[in-house]
Amino acid sequence: MTVTPHLFIPGPTNVPDKVRMAMNLPMEDMRSGEFPKLTLPVFEDLKKVFKMKDGRVFIFPSSGTGAWESAIENTLAPGDKVLMSRFGQFSLLWVDMAERLGLKVELCDEEWGTGVPLEKYADILAKDKNHEIKAVFATHNETATGVTSDIAGVRKALDAAKHPALLFVDSVSGAGSLDMRMGEWGVDCCVSGSQKGFMLPTGLGILAVSQKALDAQKQAGRMNRCFLAWEDHIKTNDLGYFPYTPATQLIRGLRTSLDLIFEEGLENIFARHTRLANGVRAAVDAWGLKLCAKDKKWHSDTVSAIYVPEGIDANNVLKTAYYRYNTSLGTGLNKLNGKVFRIGHLGALDEFMVGGVLFAVEMTLKDCGVNIKLGSGTGAAAE
Amino acid sequence: MTVTPHLFIPGPTNVPDKVRMAMNLPMEDMRSGEFPKLTLPVFEDLKKVFKMKDGRVFIFPSSGTGAWESAIENTLAPGDKVLMSRFGQFSLLWVDMAERLGLKVELCDEEWGTGVPLEKYADILAKDKNHEIKAVFATHNETATGVTSDIAGVRKALDAAKHPALLFVDSVSGAGSLDMRMGEWGVDCCVSGSQKGFMLPTGLGILAVSQKALDAQKQAGRMNRCFLAWEDHIKTNDLGYFPYTPATQLIRGLRTSLDLIFEEGLENIFARHTRLANGVRAAVDAWGLKLCAKDKKWHSDTVSAIYVPEGIDANNVLKTAYYRYNTSLGTGLNKLNGKVFRIGHLGALDEFMVGGVLFAVEMTLKDCGVNIKLGSGTGAAAE
Amino acid sequence: MTVTPHLFIPGPTNVPDKVRMAMNLPMEDMRSGEFPKLTLPVFEDLKKVFKMKDGRVFIFPSSGTGAWESAIENTLAPGDKVLMSRFGQFSLLWVDMAERLGLKVELCDEEWGTGVPLEKYADILAKDKNHEIKAVFATHNETATGVTSDIAGVRKALDAAKHPALLFVDSVSGAGSLDMRMGEWGVDCCVSGSQKGFMLPTGLGILAVSQKALDAQKQAGRMNRCFLAWEDHIKTNDLGYFPYTPATQLIRGLRTSLDLIFEEGLENIFARHTRLANGVRAAVDAWGLKLCAKDKKWHSDTVSAIYVPEGIDANNVLKTAYYRYNTSLGTGLNKLNGKVFRIGHLGALDEFMVGGVLFAVEMTLKDCGVNIKLGSGTGAAAE
Amino acid sequence: MTVTPHLFIPGPTNVPDKVRMAMNLPMEDMRSGEFPKLTLPVFEDLKKVFKMKDGRVFIFPSSGTGAWESAIENTLAPGDKVLMSRFGQFSLLWVDMAERLGLKVELCDEEWGTGVPLEKYADILAKDKNHEIKAVFATHNETATGVTSDIAGVRKALDAAKHPALLFVDSVSGAGSLDMRMGEWGVDCCVSGSQKGFMLPTGLGILAVSQKALDAQKQAGRMNRCFLAWEDHIKTNDLGYFPYTPATQLIRGLRTSLDLIFEEGLENIFARHTRLANGVRAAVDAWGLKLCAKDKKWHSDTVSAIYVPEGIDANNVLKTAYYRYNTSLGTGLNKLNGKVFRIGHLGALDEFMVGGVLFAVEMTLKDCGVNIKLGSGTGAAAE
Repeated sequence: MTVTPHLFIPGPTNVPDKVRMAMNLPMEDMRSGEFPKLTLPVFEDLKKVFKMKDGRVFIFPSSGTGAWESAIENTLAPGDKVLMSRFGQFSLLWVDMAERLGLKVELCDEEWGTGVPLEKYADILAKDKNHEIKAVFATHNETATGVTSDIAGVRKALDAAKHPALLFVDSVSGAGSLDMRMGEWGVDCCVSGSQKGFMLPTGLGILAVSQKALDAQKQAGRMNRCFLAWEDHIKTNDLGYFPYTPATQLIRGLRTSLDLIFEEGLENIFARHTRLANGVRAAVDAWGLKLCAKDKKWHSDTVSAIYVPEGIDANNVLKTAYYRYNTSLGTGLNKLNGKVFRIGHLGALDEFMVGGVLFAVEMTLKDCGVNIKLGSGTGAAAE
Repeated sequence: MTVTPHLFIPGPTNVPDKVRMAMNLPMEDMRSGEFPKLTLPVFEDLKKVFKMKDGRVFIFPSSGTGAWESAIENTLAPGDKVLMSRFGQFSLLWVDMAERLGLKVELCDEEWGTGVPLEKYADILAKDKNHEIKAVFATHNETATGVTSDIAGVRKALDAAKHPALLFVDSVSGAGSLDMRMGEWGVDCCVSGSQKGFMLPTGLGILAVSQKALDAQKQAGRMNRCFLAWEDHIKTNDLGYFPYTPATQLIRGLRTSLDLIFEEGLENIFARHTRLANGVRAAVDAWGLKLCAKDKKWHSDTVSAIYVPEGIDANNVLKTAYYRYNTSLGTGLNKLNGKVFRIGHLGALDEFMVGGVLFAVEMTLKDCGVNIKLGSGTGAAAE
Repeated sequence: MTVTPHLFIPGPTNVPDKVRMAMNLPMEDMRSGEFPKLTLPVFEDLKKVFKMKDGRVFIFPSSGTGAWESAIENTLAPGDKVLMSRFGQFSLLWVDMAERLGLKVELCDEEWGTGVPLEKYADILAKDKNHEIKAVFATHNETATGVTSDIAGVRKALDAAKHPALLFVDSVSGAGSLDMRMGEWGVDCCVSGSQKGFMLPTGLGILAVSQKALDAQKQAGRMNRCFLAWEDHIKTNDLGYFPYTPATQLIRGLRTSLDLIFEEGLENIFARHTRLANGVRAAVDAWGLKLCAKDKKWHSDTVSAIYVPEGIDANNVLKTAYYRYNTSLGTGLNKLNGKVFRIGHLGALDEFMVGGVLFAVEMTLKDCGVNIKLGSGTGAAAE
Repeated sequence: MTVTPHLFIPGPTNVPDKVRMAMNLPMEDMRSGEFPKLTLPVFEDLKKVFKMKDGRVFIFPSSGTGAWESAIENTLAPGDKVLMSRFGQFSLLWVDMAERLGLKVELCDEEWGTGVPLEKYADILAKDKNHEIKAVFATHNETATGVTSDIAGVRKALDAAKHPALLFVDSVSGAGSLDMRMGEWGVDCCVSGSQKGFMLPTGLGILAVSQKALDAQKQAGRMNRCFLAWEDHIKTNDLGYFPYTPATQLIRGLRTSLDLIFEEGLENIFARHTRLANGVRAAVDAWGLKLCAKDKKWHSDTVSAIYVPEGIDANNVLKTAYYRYNTSLGTGLNKLNGKVFRIGHLGALDEFMVGGVLFAVEMTLKDCGVNIKLGSGTGAAAE
């Protein structure tokens, strides 16, 4: 294929050319006196992206899944009770992890297409007078359904109940693209990865933790751990080093990525994501299709999961887009398989690219038998 | 800027990722025993792109302009009479070069938006009983106006007059994207460059010459020359080497580029260019705008020059596209400046990219005060 | 700095240009129909590098440390007894991990500069009639001291005792550079990473496991785990996919790396490492310095740890090499800090590079007050 | 081959990683409003490298040979008399070009291994009372023999004769590595290229010209020209543009290259070249071999041409170095073929690399039957 397939999955996202160039480098000595000149400012700058007021950020050579695991095993003990909700493939997997790591999950099973159930959370927390719940989990952006939840609302529920539980947020497909105010919202562990809003290849698990989480980690009885243990990282990170060989190439890329993020400005980035997502949603509307997200308040600005009409196979849409129009869309996961396709609209993205993908999707849908007027989606988006 | 501006000028064109990767290499010894293993097949494969039946291809570290000059100075003598036509900025520059190099130009000055005047050529050649005209020049694809001329028709005019003049063709923005049958059409010098259909950075002048041109070069009295002299290249090229340091990085890129070209297939590439160009023209039509090309027969499948309506400044369109929509369009050259903008649609291009550029142009035009219906162009193109 | 520092740490090693070029690519859809065409052959080819007769290879987005942890937590239960030996910083860290993950370690504490104590292992295993020892650990190549241990010897000890324990080998700085015959030697878990013999950036934990290890994993009571759990990978790897986003860029690089490995041939690679290591050792000898490895049988062909003379600070040697001669050497770890420096001689390496590093070290040592004859080391190595 | 051959030809030289990274970029619009922000400072910075007091620098998409031709055809008329000297392959080729372009060459044919004959030049100029000589040519650094000539001395000869001729200098393998004081020495045309001291791939002809040369260009009767004509470049360069598509990728690389040059400092670069060249020469001496340069005053700090002993075939040395030791040395050109091999020691080079190449050459020479003591060369160099 002469043209590389256009990538509109909700991660890995498109790597900006400047980041790609910055990663095209030879290996370096991660124990040299020069290395901390790279790493220390990166640690500091990451705090700004998460809008932290205290705590620190860990960078693991892993994926977001590793950062999930690190958050749990460093702060909780086997058998601890936690409050979670499930409304899509990624919140589902997080629950699965929590259970496999030995936690007792108080689970809110929600309709896919909705998000964190604030009222239920408030009720449960209010009733938990003995504070048996040690941590509350919230998926900031459910990538499978294109649903964004209200993290400030979760904080309110905790505060209303005067509940001391830790607040864990999965913002893998949010951080860097959606506003994440760890300090203001009292988030204790915010899980992210390199391959979404940070516009890098997969390979870094990025975990931002509050001072409260760091304190929790020091208590006895936490889970067994080593690879993703915070204590080893704290000791070495403070000097700009790592307890084992870090992924230097990606950290160099992250440096450039952060430069691009601050050059554009976080608030401008959030506004751009909203603007482009509105364009995509206008097209979906113009096509007469429906989003998986049940309500406007759940709309995600980083990914849209779109139902195909009855009788159409979403997997055929995906294949047609890929093989005929050279465009990678996101697949429907788990019970949404065959029913939805997803358009990732996060990271390094602009109007042109949104126009391109809507154009490609429009033709794909028509080819697959969906009755749409060509130009309706792109036209609506352009408005 | 996080996203690199989208490039829709009619050259340099977008470099495919595989070519970019192939050029990301260290320097090499251009006198090593391994080097001819790269160069000899490249020379052979270039012949296939030009559909030559004899002759050879030169690769100069230059641009297309250098290849123009090389064609002239190796085969003609100062004072020689040549037949040329002028109907756009690039045919104009070629005439200028011919005159500056001391040729006597019999010039057909045509309306911009038309191409090589076959009837006039036929008349002039028929009248030139003494064969004073030593070479006939034809611009295959006039990049400034988006006009493709009929090279087979020029050959017919020559044959009808039984005229022995050499046939020179500028196919800088044609070769690799439009059909070029040097053998069948009796083209003696076909000028091209790396940065258009060959999908490479600027830096290689590619000059394909017939046996008849090689014979002409051997005659006494040709122009003074050295840098672009064929004789030095012939001597060394036959062994896989060059008379001075070649641009090894670009030749490595050309190897990959040729691989991509043959993988897709020349005829498939031509068909793709036609299909995508039809999409662009459908959009122009839907917008109610006019092409610079006066007639369907002149339509270029590699670039469209589009008139803006009266009262609109085409340069404002260009700036808006660039600064607001991150998209590089081609400027109006010479007397078309301010009146037209151009969309390059050649090289590594697919439906997605055409959709993206039409989407960006649509919004740009609206912003600039052109009264168009958003979605009309992309919709028409998608059909 | 115009010239990138020359890298002679024992990992990350130098990335070959072809691998670097292969990784300079855009992101791709790890759920596309094309992706398994990359991954399935990579899984198969890795088996050849480890000379496996059964089992499979896991590729985690992690470092070697992650692969260590994966090996333990998938096959052992908390409280299981294991036999380990400690004779350098990396075997020390492995023991530390085993203890933190809840294993009961029967430890052989050996002099640094020696390796796995075969006789002691044999004795202990013979005495373990009840087979309380569930796994025997052996560090194939101790990177801190430049010591290679005899894995075939460990197998013999197990066989002599008819002991069913699993055999775990850390070959992070061995695999791909030193012979690793998992099938013949009955290795059950062989831990490796991308950044040594595989000549890639850090970021992949590569874990090769036998069928026996896979069987062990299926037993009840294994440790809690999720991120590095085999079961999720097995399910998806068989189809060419991963349970979460894989590090596609590195896997593309690994493809090229494996191509280079098979092009040169494993046995040729091992022979090259021996030849170049002999050169380094000849230089050390000519300089009148001593290796950390106590005996010829412990000599590592991938890294040499070299004692500086009394009164010389090895850290000063490292700094001088880096800042004056643009050369990164390996630091002395733990109790060897200040006493040794290390030369990594593994991966993409040839005579020229060994000559360069010996030349740089020679001048460095002289600058640091070591009394050596310039040219003695390079001369000895050249012989 | 896993390790890319080590490159020690006198150009193309090794491209620094930062330059390579900077060139790994997509194509850009060379007519955009942003482009002059790149080009205008590059033009200015080049003047500093050439230490000009007036005039300007042209950047052609060509090689050094193109810049040679441009210098001649823009300032001289066919039939003009020029003073040249010939003492190696490149000065020979320059004479050849001058003659082919129609100049009348007053030639000093010197022994290869010597340089510009200052006394003869002084004599000839003194005798040329009518100032028939329009230009004096001097090869600053003869790459074929490793001879540097005294350009200040040529200026003295001109001044002593009060001769108004233009002074042309070929500094292709000098500029950026050897001191070039165009202003102080009154050099009118200084020819260079991208692939030597500028540490870039081949593809840019860099021509620095004084105001006097610019004035000469304006006179009537200069040679026919177009591709390399200054007038077109002047008109567009002043605005940051070019008369035809420039090699944007290389100009981006040149930006980074210039940054590296100024970061190190020109005088530091010259000193480094001298220091490293002294190392190479010490090794040649220790091996008992002879340089092609007849006298210390001719020693080039950028390249050494080294005679092999009688009975040894230099081409065998080259092949052995390349195929057995993965090292590219420079071949003996023209009548030196088979008798010398060359080591390029210019551009991005440090001690390590010199150590590496001497190590490789030492082993190569021994393999080829030259009786040398291994370690003697590297030892001498290290001193």
